[in-house]
Amino acid sequence: MQNRFSNINTFMGMETPYDESDVVVFGVGFDGTTSNRPGTRFASSSMRLEFYGLETYSPKLNLDLENKKICDIGDLELSIGNTDVVLGEIYEGTKSIVNDDKIPFMIGGEHLVTLPAFKAVYEKHSDVYVLHFDAHTDLREEYNNNKNSHATVIKRIWDLVGDNRIYQFGIRSGTKEEFDFALKEKHTYMEVSTIDTFEEVVKSLENKKIYLTIDLDVLDPSIFPGTGTPEPGGVTYKEFESIFKILKNSNIKLVGCDIVELSPDYDDTKVSTITACKILRELALVVAHNFNK
Amino acid sequence: MQNRFSNINTFMGMETPYDESDVVVFGVGFDGTTSNRPGTRFASSSMRLEFYGLETYSPKLNLDLENKKICDIGDLELSIGNTDVVLGEIYEGTKSIVNDDKIPFMIGGEHLVTLPAFKAVYEKHSDVYVLHFDAHTDLREEYNNNKNSHATVIKRIWDLVGDNRIYQFGIRSGTKEEFDFALKEKHTYMEVSTIDTFEEVVKSLENKKIYLTIDLDVLDPSIFPGTGTPEPGGVTYKEFESIFKILKNSNIKLVGCDIVELSPDYDDTKVSTITACKILRELALVVAHNFNK
Amino acid sequence: MQNRFSNINTFMGMETPYDESDVVVFGVGFDGTTSNRPGTRFASSSMRLEFYGLETYSPKLNLDLENKKICDIGDLELSIGNTDVVLGEIYEGTKSIVNDDKIPFMIGGEHLVTLPAFKAVYEKHSDVYVLHFDAHTDLREEYNNNKNSHATVIKRIWDLVGDNRIYQFGIRSGTKEEFDFALKEKHTYMEVSTIDTFEEVVKSLENKKIYLTIDLDVLDPSIFPGTGTPEPGGVTYKEFESIFKILKNSNIKLVGCDIVELSPDYDDTKVSTITACKILRELALVVAHNFNK
Amino acid sequence: MQNRFSNINTFMGMETPYDESDVVVFGVGFDGTTSNRPGTRFASSSMRLEFYGLETYSPKLNLDLENKKICDIGDLELSIGNTDVVLGEIYEGTKSIVNDDKIPFMIGGEHLVTLPAFKAVYEKHSDVYVLHFDAHTDLREEYNNNKNSHATVIKRIWDLVGDNRIYQFGIRSGTKEEFDFALKEKHTYMEVSTIDTFEEVVKSLENKKIYLTIDLDVLDPSIFPGTGTPEPGGVTYKEFESIFKILKNSNIKLVGCDIVELSPDYDDTKVSTITACKILRELALVVAHNFNK
Amino acid sequence: MQNRFSNINTFMGMETPYDESDVVVFGVGFDGTTSNRPGTRFASSSMRLEFYGLETYSPKLNLDLENKKICDIGDLELSIGNTDVVLGEIYEGTKSIVNDDKIPFMIGGEHLVTLPAFKAVYEKHSDVYVLHFDAHTDLREEYNNNKNSHATVIKRIWDLVGDNRIYQFGIRSGTKEEFDFALKEKHTYMEVSTIDTFEEVVKSLENKKIYLTIDLDVLDPSIFPGTGTPEPGGVTYKEFESIFKILKNSNIKLVGCDIVELSPDYDDTKVSTITACKILRELALVVAHNFNK
Amino acid sequence: MQNRFSNINTFMGMETPYDESDVVVFGVGFDGTTSNRPGTRFASSSMRLEFYGLETYSPKLNLDLENKKICDIGDLELSIGNTDVVLGEIYEGTKSIVNDDKIPFMIGGEHLVTLPAFKAVYEKHSDVYVLHFDAHTDLREEYNNNKNSHATVIKRIWDLVGDNRIYQFGIRSGTKEEFDFALKEKHTYMEVSTIDTFEEVVKSLENKKIYLTIDLDVLDPSIFPGTGTPEPGGVTYKEFESIFKILKNSNIKLVGCDIVELSPDYDDTKVSTITACKILRELALVVAHNFNK
Repeated sequence: MQNRFSNINTFMGMETPYDESDVVVFGVGFDGTTSNRPGTRFASSSMRLEFYGLETYSPKLNLDLENKKICDIGDLELSIGNTDVVLGEIYEGTKSIVNDDKIPFMIGGEHLVTLPAFKAVYEKHSDVYVLHFDAHTDLREEYNNNKNSHATVIKRIWDLVGDNRIYQFGIRSGTKEEFDFALKEKHTYMEVSTIDTFEEVVKSLENKKIYLTIDLDVLDPSIFPGTGTPEPGGVTYKEFESIFKILKNSNIKLVGCDIVELSPDYDDTKVSTITACKILRELALVVAHNFNK
Repeated sequence: MQNRFSNINTFMGMETPYDESDVVVFGVGFDGTTSNRPGTRFASSSMRLEFYGLETYSPKLNLDLENKKICDIGDLELSIGNTDVVLGEIYEGTKSIVNDDKIPFMIGGEHLVTLPAFKAVYEKHSDVYVLHFDAHTDLREEYNNNKNSHATVIKRIWDLVGDNRIYQFGIRSGTKEEFDFALKEKHTYMEVSTIDTFEEVVKSLENKKIYLTIDLDVLDPSIFPGTGTPEPGGVTYKEFESIFKILKNSNIKLVGCDIVELSPDYDDTKVSTITACKILRELALVVAHNFNK
Repeated sequence: MQNRFSNINTFMGMETPYDESDVVVFGVGFDGTTSNRPGTRFASSSMRLEFYGLETYSPKLNLDLENKKICDIGDLELSIGNTDVVLGEIYEGTKSIVNDDKIPFMIGGEHLVTLPAFKAVYEKHSDVYVLHFDAHTDLREEYNNNKNSHATVIKRIWDLVGDNRIYQFGIRSGTKEEFDFALKEKHTYMEVSTIDTFEEVVKSLENKKIYLTIDLDVLDPSIFPGTGTPEPGGVTYKEFESIFKILKNSNIKLVGCDIVELSPDYDDTKVSTITACKILRELALVVAHNFNK
Repeated sequence: MQNRFSNINTFMGMETPYDESDVVVFGVGFDGTTSNRPGTRFASSSMRLEFYGLETYSPKLNLDLENKKICDIGDLELSIGNTDVVLGEIYEGTKSIVNDDKIPFMIGGEHLVTLPAFKAVYEKHSDVYVLHFDAHTDLREEYNNNKNSHATVIKRIWDLVGDNRIYQFGIRSGTKEEFDFALKEKHTYMEVSTIDTFEEVVKSLENKKIYLTIDLDVLDPSIFPGTGTPEPGGVTYKEFESIFKILKNSNIKLVGCDIVELSPDYDDTKVSTITACKILRELALVVAHNFNK
Repeated sequence: MQNRFSNINTFMGMETPYDESDVVVFGVGFDGTTSNRPGTRFASSSMRLEFYGLETYSPKLNLDLENKKICDIGDLELSIGNTDVVLGEIYEGTKSIVNDDKIPFMIGGEHLVTLPAFKAVYEKHSDVYVLHFDAHTDLREEYNNNKNSHATVIKRIWDLVGDNRIYQFGIRSGTKEEFDFALKEKHTYMEVSTIDTFEEVVKSLENKKIYLTIDLDVLDPSIFPGTGTPEPGGVTYKEFESIFKILKNSNIKLVGCDIVELSPDYDDTKVSTITACKILRELALVVAHNFNK
Repeated sequence: MQNRFSNINTFMGMETPYDESDVVVFGVGFDGTTSNRPGTRFASSSMRLEFYGLETYSPKLNLDLENKKICDIGDLELSIGNTDVVLGEIYEGTKSIVNDDKIPFMIGGEHLVTLPAFKAVYEKHSDVYVLHFDAHTDLREEYNNNKNSHATVIKRIWDLVGDNRIYQFGIRSGTKEEFDFALKEKHTYMEVSTIDTFEEVVKSLENKKIYLTIDLDVLDPSIFPGTGTPEPGGVTYKEFESIFKILKNSNIKLVGCDIVELSPDYDDTKVSTITACKILRELALVVAHNFNK
């Protein structure tokens, strides 16, 4: 009887059984250190609804979700109120995927969720490089007396990987100290405001392992108002989508990635959510495609 | 591994396997004859998200979903663009549940969806009575040259069951002809604007079989703006919730029910959706409770 | 050919030619002295759109717009930026209707528009009484160095008519001086917060001429958030609609009326606009009905 | 008296009497096959309100509505619930305009409304070419078991006109089959994502008859969120407006056109509606201008 | 020069210097354990803006802020991300006010902020009673593995004060265990759904010290949608405002109070914020009035 | 004690005491001649709230507010209802700042506020040039029978300064007469739609005194919907922000400036307000920087 009915419980086209999957998508609804507008906790559930307005086929990439082994396993169950406990839970959840030799693809949540997910990947792939899209530097040593914060997350990752391993794109907000850390002292590679050097960087990283983290506020607030701290002057969707083809055509090895900082309730038009969905589709296609190269 | 993750795919607390269930909840996202603001197609999916803000326990009823055998089987898959075809699909879907001796509990959709669902119930229980909550009479003979419409649905049901079988509550909008049909010619029982006689009516129907249809616009637009045609002067939630205890304490036999006309995108506060969820919880508890009397 | 097409240009059911009409509805989109949230300038145009969700028949009154001689003549063209000039324009516009022996029914705009409209009526009917619904006293002597303001409008009308002629209902906000003017010094009759004495007042005014002015913020913000200065603790729509039957059953002579202070863009659900429409329908029915008593 | 009042009932500057008009604008509020977010039924009425924020003069085109013979005849009255019946009504309405040797300019509604309007034009001008702007291919053979759908409309037009007659611009979403139909099998000319070849195409069509259909979701959702299925990566308004000058400077003969898929209630800022209005103004100026070449 | 300019930095009418004040109002923007919709962090700043639409005079109470010694000292600066640290900061901030023999009046923030504020009051007034308005019981022993949470706050206060000291009103949501704790085991006094016994309770507490905590979701979502977990079936504003006169006429000693759980961004009409403001005005008037009895 | 608390009362980083400041920021909430959507009265207060999401450091300019002498003195207190009176108040307020040899930096309000502010500057610096960014010409001789209006403000300034002193950028809407005044008769320099010649113009004005007025609707409505009359086809934020570096690198002397026409309530995402804040930061940095050259 039940075949007349369907239940929306996974991202459309990401219904491969876990054991057969190459890429594992999961949501992490943590926004506990958000200092401005909260609400990224609702990102994955709002995305699962809006994903149905998209096709499974990407004309830009000429790839189709229906031919890829991608599994949406739902949302990680999290504690509330103590950041350190939550970071542990995210670490364990990601680790279980990494240990099964699958690529973890996390949907945040605020940007701090990248730290434990990255750590789980890094422990397996200590030679990993980080590609980072963001409006904000996220390079503070601490923020609000806190070492672990959405505003310090890349600095914490630098603590792990050190110099010459982090590449930042689209950055346009931060303190002078943060910009000096990147631009003067060269601890990271940083392209300010734009993402034009991405192709060149990718070429320089051929055959390297890559963790890719996308803070969606790298996009201009005209297309992406639904985020905690919108920062005018970002990249357009059209500029941004160029990265997917570059990645598809490259030989870099994507060993983990995430999309963070969608706060859906701040955009009643739902365009922010839809944009996050399209980025999810394109990136998941690329990750699954490259996995089998 | 997957036990760290959870996937939101059914109404919380309505996860009994189909075969073991007494009550079967399903969504029907049809709004094809809506003449004013459309969007009831999104009712069930928005409700599944917001349902998580409620408890499974009802203090009014002293009943808990966790002790009831209720199954959410998701949404019925529908065609688009031809009303008659869709009505057939709803009829078949409901029939399959009725044939399994379970109580169908439908979430609309516009009010026309009640017609095929009721018909499936009526074919099994030809002695069924109809309790109808609504702001609008829905007694037109035809609307916009259409015999099957949200504005004619109760008239079509009357075509099936005839006089002395339909009880209408909260009605406050319609043409003079419609009000005359009920109030002068007494083809239906109609209480205008209020629902105060509901208890008395229920008493008069002891041991009878009942189909209950709730057009949520019976509520005042102050609490329920998210509907196609809000009509000021409705009942408050507090007034409305009295019906659940009356039903629980009665001996009427609920053989089918529905909740229709939530159009969630017209209320960005989501209070309309939350209100629909609470009505769903209370009514599902009562239906499941009475099923085993 | 054109009979296939219809153009929404008047309130549905208010299409009697001007010369044959008893009641003349017109919009006045002035909000130049609004001190809080502006936007009442858009009230009449938003109401013309939403009016189509209502029926022409009122079950409460058992009256139908289709049997009444009501004419919607559109919006008065106004200057911008100088309050005195605009007041003159409203005065002239209303006067032209009064001179044609028709009842002017104005849709504001902010409450100050009542002053010139009332003045035009008062010059013909110097024995007129004023029934006033509002959340605010509007009895300041001046506001922001201004004698003519939405906050002084009833005081200006009192300047014209004097004591024992103004009846205020639902009032719940003002300065101590304003409340003393009414409650202690008895210059006006004032019922605080509620409207329960309306029937009694109407009875005491049998056969008198009445100007009725409704500041829609008399309603509770739960049903009417779309106004410049919402004030919690108002009357519900259901309480408010009782006045229409009281008026219909009375022998008072309505010589002019207005509905003011809908600011539609502050309520995206459009329920405020719909509520204003229903009040317009009920009141226009009563005015037209009583006109021919 | 009435000259003090004005009634907003036509697009400002489009008030030429029907018989004297060259171009006839009309609304068609049909959204019956919309599979995602409905609401295009409200497009024309919301546009008539917002049009007043624009000037009648276009500095880009150096043309003024006040010098053109354009008539807004309002909205076509439609049935509800049966797609085939509605398509017939649109066909008849358009045909009546075509038969009067005027150019029909339709405001949708969903994209399926283009099919009957085009058919009426095609029967008079069987040598007509189609210029099509859209985010979506609309080339499915059927959708949801339906041959007539917003997702199949261009395929249905291709059924009529065949190869080498349809030119598509801005397309960025569809199934692989649809893209293959256009890009591999060359049944239509398709420019993916961008509209840069429009000028070249127009040049190649000198002196040809053209039907122009604009699905407004060709625009990027940053400027046009108010549509049923927003698709990131579209053209900016500035890119899009270049087409008007190209058309003005060409010798193609516009024999019909439409603007579809504005769903105004999904954009509370009203920018989507305002953008549709500006496109209406520019295109109506061009059509009227070219009519008299 | 600067006297031409004014800066909105305190609640209007609450500008007494700190040292001369009886009542000290302060904001605490913590929402770190919120499990549903976050955003109460913005409550106090949005309230300072909207407060200007109110008068300083309360006609219900016949009291005026201008005659009371109330000081708004702004918002407490808080850490982010670790609940225990924040609770300490709130405790210290409140303690400093209590130690100066002033009445602390806190604006939350989520309900957990009441715990440290109450503790600071309790340490000075160990014989204090608690009056609690809420939709939710807040009596869980732990929530999400957390002893300190918005859902456990009243249980934590009970841990301090024990039986017969806590009075709960308006409660309508919780687990069966929580209701049993109150209604069966009588550890607290609980009135379900309504607040009708408030006057009686206040009378029974004559001359007692009282801490009053108002979770604004005690109000019905029709008037107060802007909160984290709206629960239909609450009290109206008119019902609620009766408590202010009861308190004013009583001899209870208010030694501390708070208003919590306004999440302003979930109500774009701003009515929720305005309602919170009016409650703040009424309650601050009563507290200041009773202080000098 | 109070050092635990902070009160948001000035733009963050603009807290230099008035007497020590170089640049004085103030709000002017006048929107009395707005012909379309009102609400610019709320611009400065909404900006003070959202400013906290920005950093004080500008990476584009490598300047930090913390090193600049800027003072936010709050909002000018204004009368309501009579435009001429208000213009006098703005004139006096600005004059007091100019007389103290500080640079006035005004936040509107509608564009008419520029007239009195400019006049105060012009009386001291009669050799001043005007740089004007806008979507609209603002060159009408009168509007709605009004010489002083948001639509005439640049014409009124031209009345004062005459030919060759006004430079307009981004203009894309107006009557034919207005465009002829600028483009044919060359009374002003006007760049249509774009701002590409700004650098060249600035170079040609080396060492000149400049008043800079920015109507924020020069930006495209995709990034700036929150304004009275959005006009599609504007400049992106990224294009616009180029002017700040050009100004910083130039030797022009900024003697006054303003940012006008943010109407915050028309953009619930708050991106319009945030964008205005970023422009305020960048421009204030440049003005303060150049002041001490």
